[in-house]
Amino acid sequence: MRLKLLKKNKTFSGETCFYEHASEVTQTNMKFSAFLPGDRSQIQNCIIWLSGLTCTEENFITKAGAQQFLDGTNTMIICPDTSPRGLNLPGEHVSYDFGSGASFYVNATSPGYCDHYRMYDYIAKELVSIIRSDFGAKKISIMGHSMGGHGALVLGLREQDTFVCVSAFSPIVNPIAVDWGEKAFHGYLGENKEDWKKYDATEIIRSGVSRKDTLLIDQGLSDEFLEKQLLTQHLVDVAKKSGQKVIVHFREGYDHSYFFISTFIKEHLEFHLKAFLMREAEIN
Amino acid sequence: MRLKLLKKNKTFSGETCFYEHASEVTQTNMKFSAFLPGDRSQIQNCIIWLSGLTCTEENFITKAGAQQFLDGTNTMIICPDTSPRGLNLPGEHVSYDFGSGASFYVNATSPGYCDHYRMYDYIAKELVSIIRSDFGAKKISIMGHSMGGHGALVLGLREQDTFVCVSAFSPIVNPIAVDWGEKAFHGYLGENKEDWKKYDATEIIRSGVSRKDTLLIDQGLSDEFLEKQLLTQHLVDVAKKSGQKVIVHFREGYDHSYFFISTFIKEHLEFHLKAFLMREAEIN
Repeated sequence: MRLKLLKKNKTFSGETCFYEHASEVTQTNMKFSAFLPGDRSQIQNCIIWLSGLTCTEENFITKAGAQQFLDGTNTMIICPDTSPRGLNLPGEHVSYDFGSGASFYVNATSPGYCDHYRMYDYIAKELVSIIRSDFGAKKISIMGHSMGGHGALVLGLREQDTFVCVSAFSPIVNPIAVDWGEKAFHGYLGENKEDWKKYDATEIIRSGVSRKDTLLIDQGLSDEFLEKQLLTQHLVDVAKKSGQKVIVHFREGYDHSYFFISTFIKEHLEFHLKAFLMREAEIN
Repeated sequence: MRLKLLKKNKTFSGETCFYEHASEVTQTNMKFSAFLPGDRSQIQNCIIWLSGLTCTEENFITKAGAQQFLDGTNTMIICPDTSPRGLNLPGEHVSYDFGSGASFYVNATSPGYCDHYRMYDYIAKELVSIIRSDFGAKKISIMGHSMGGHGALVLGLREQDTFVCVSAFSPIVNPIAVDWGEKAFHGYLGENKEDWKKYDATEIIRSGVSRKDTLLIDQGLSDEFLEKQLLTQHLVDVAKKSGQKVIVHFREGYDHSYFFISTFIKEHLEFHLKAFLMREAEIN
């Protein structure tokens, strides 16, 4: 888990950094970006950001405008790449919604992919371990966009001891019910759809899992993927039945892009910062 | 000058838009992006942003985080591409610092380029005309980064009736004295170095031109191009002799990247907004 610093850029009073390391989980090199507020010795908390299809570790950290809102806080943000790279598995580089750039944050079980596409464990175990050991953060939360919003919800619902707070922009809330999820889960997990459900936020909540805290979701109403791939209302409906608290802001006129994220990232970051503060108060 | 809207994304309460049009000046299609604050009927002012080498109309508008600071104001920002595209002139696509993506905002006189690489006139005349006629802005200012900072200073010094305010990040202030400028000006303007001086901010000030208002420059001290290509101090020195007011913020630890720009863009936008207000007060 030796981190190699690829580059760093002073941003506000902190540093935007790009790292690479040899991952034990994926058996490949993995990259991530991070924003470290000015005084690194003050870092107490870390938000994990999971990006969407076709993205890398660069998209969020260059486009969302998050740094200004974390500058001067005790909270860093870390943005892993969206899949292993440098492999040449069958079908890995054929389409934008499967393989490279499209891990869906599952532990693959299909031949070839099962040895590397273990992004669920990479985030929940290896990245979490790096955050604690290399950056000294004690409390960790998770958020993401689209495929990464799906990842944040699934990881946040299943790893409640690890993640203090969960939020998502434009998440794929019910992947087993849409084309993107069906294709990806079939490719990574095989034909048994029962195996897919543990990677589906709506199904996880339906199964009885719930967090005590509130999930925060922002969803643009002019999002070109809302009706066919995201299905936000499916999660709202099961959450209502199960008692899982969720705030969904449906935003008139906004689409699926980083321009949408940049508009509301401040609210999400404040939601996470507040959750860290509340957890701190509980501990003390 | 019919504008074709390529896409628009709601951003804060306004819209980030991408346009294309057939340029009379460059005899090519030209693209630009723009952020239009919520109520377009309220637009009074427009800032032109000129980007640096290798950039397109996309870099600034996706990375700088400017929209949040213009939202709710009467001021839009417009970001043209950095050169004509779609040609195949001799040597045009060979290197990053000449030809496509590297116009240096001059009116080329060399064979082939003279028919298309007329970016000085494109900005000063055609884009200014579009801003007035298609967007209804009355007052216009200019800023830019690196090669675009050079462009902003040169256009701002020479077109004082057009531009209310001028600022730059990491500008190439004395292009005739550095490799980037020598290569580009030789290619666009030929061998007579006297012809180069009208596109060199330091030489323009040295020749006696000055603006009544103050130029604002931000320059990172860890900028990898500072010593060999930017030469900020050359402009500071001639400005001091000539009486041209200039504020240069040398910023410790910052480099040439958009992370630097995102850190200080708020200050530059406020500088321009204040200049528009002052000009408004002068008129009334």
